[in-house]
Amino acid sequence: MELFFADDIRDARVRLDPEESAHCVRVLRHRAGDEISVIDGRGTLYRCALELADAKGAEARILERTPGFGSHPYHLTMAVCPTKNIDRYEWFVEKATEIGVDTIAPVIGERSERKVLKTERLRRLALSATKQSLKAAIPQIAEPVSVRDFILSAPDDALGLICYCFDDMERVPVTAALQAGAGRPVMVLIGPEGDFSPEEAALARERGWIPVSLGPSRLRTETAALTAATAVYLYFLSSSAAARRLPSP
Amino acid sequence: MELFFADDIRDARVRLDPEESAHCVRVLRHRAGDEISVIDGRGTLYRCALELADAKGAEARILERTPGFGSHPYHLTMAVCPTKNIDRYEWFVEKATEIGVDTIAPVIGERSERKVLKTERLRRLALSATKQSLKAAIPQIAEPVSVRDFILSAPDDALGLICYCFDDMERVPVTAALQAGAGRPVMVLIGPEGDFSPEEAALARERGWIPVSLGPSRLRTETAALTAATAVYLYFLSSSAAARRLPSP
Repeated sequence: MELFFADDIRDARVRLDPEESAHCVRVLRHRAGDEISVIDGRGTLYRCALELADAKGAEARILERTPGFGSHPYHLTMAVCPTKNIDRYEWFVEKATEIGVDTIAPVIGERSERKVLKTERLRRLALSATKQSLKAAIPQIAEPVSVRDFILSAPDDALGLICYCFDDMERVPVTAALQAGAGRPVMVLIGPEGDFSPEEAALARERGWIPVSLGPSRLRTETAALTAATAVYLYFLSSSAAARRLPSP
Repeated sequence: MELFFADDIRDARVRLDPEESAHCVRVLRHRAGDEISVIDGRGTLYRCALELADAKGAEARILERTPGFGSHPYHLTMAVCPTKNIDRYEWFVEKATEIGVDTIAPVIGERSERKVLKTERLRRLALSATKQSLKAAIPQIAEPVSVRDFILSAPDDALGLICYCFDDMERVPVTAALQAGAGRPVMVLIGPEGDFSPEEAALARERGWIPVSLGPSRLRTETAALTAATAVYLYFLSSSAAARRLPSP
């Protein structure tokens, strides 16, 4: 199934922008009367009949709506410091989108070597990965803020998990922390190559963030971030499937 | 900590090959008397004193051995069909090495678009990711075989898990399958973009492979492979840490 994205959806009609129109009509050669599948980027899939096969501005009539298409049973914000090598961050955005994430928030730590990040390209990557993985909601890519501001602005009801490397305190295995979080929106904070500063880590703990362990392996920033996102995905997968567990031999 | 790799370790002495010697002596400017850390690629870390600082053939004396350095509490073979875009497969090799995998076996399915794969570059990537993630055992990169031959040659005591997309049968959530596997070596089989052929899937099931689900998300081949490897890693992390679980609020 090929998905198109449109943000102009009114009066039971979908209007594709020039880029999507060209892809639909010129590249895929769709003609008036063809059925196409369109997502609104906010979670709904629309089955449509193409009516105006215009490569500059295609229009289609909505036949059927599917809310929550390709959604996941959790709410996850990944706040991840940009990597020195931006390819690694872009890779994380693609993979986290495939797995299932609601918001990716680039955060700048006191020890971040990369202090600036262009989000436009990340948004394009998130859109393309959303279509490729058959989801209707595109992850939000937030504008970069400092780690400190991110922690201070986090909602009180969220389960905040912070992954960092200081060996000076007890960390909770990520799966155990999720069990304790019972249905709250999850926020995961991943530091830069140089780790969080002690002040950033102390602020997070003051504000109730739980220091979590991703296990003994020494993971790169982007690998730690994807491992944490996968832990959330798998946790809700296995808990929702608990009833179908195999008996132990 | 910077790790060097050597396969010439005899009589309490370590001899670095020309490439590692140049990196140690020319790039990092180590001198005789410096302490260096060397891995044998089979699981042991050696703390050494550099004695011969020769950029073509450095030699060091072993001061201390640490077997099982950076090891993981499971045995995992990932049998993954090569992706059309080889970068994606190389990415998987790097990430799976960081997480912790014992063998990566490229397997060629009847529907694989890529039928050949050069393993030399994958071995270099695995070595570099092993050093970067502070492990002493380098994952084995097997030579490619057909999916059919891989299934027929799998050891009987292994827990075989096969991930594929046919909707015509019940699949077990991967975490539940691991619980049923209780301590057996784990083998995970991941198909190509075009999925396994029905014959390959049927053969696997005849031989006792368990069809597993990686959840509702539609994942690319390399993402599915890393998600499965991460599921194994996290399963053993959380089971080994079960005693440290947080109480639910």
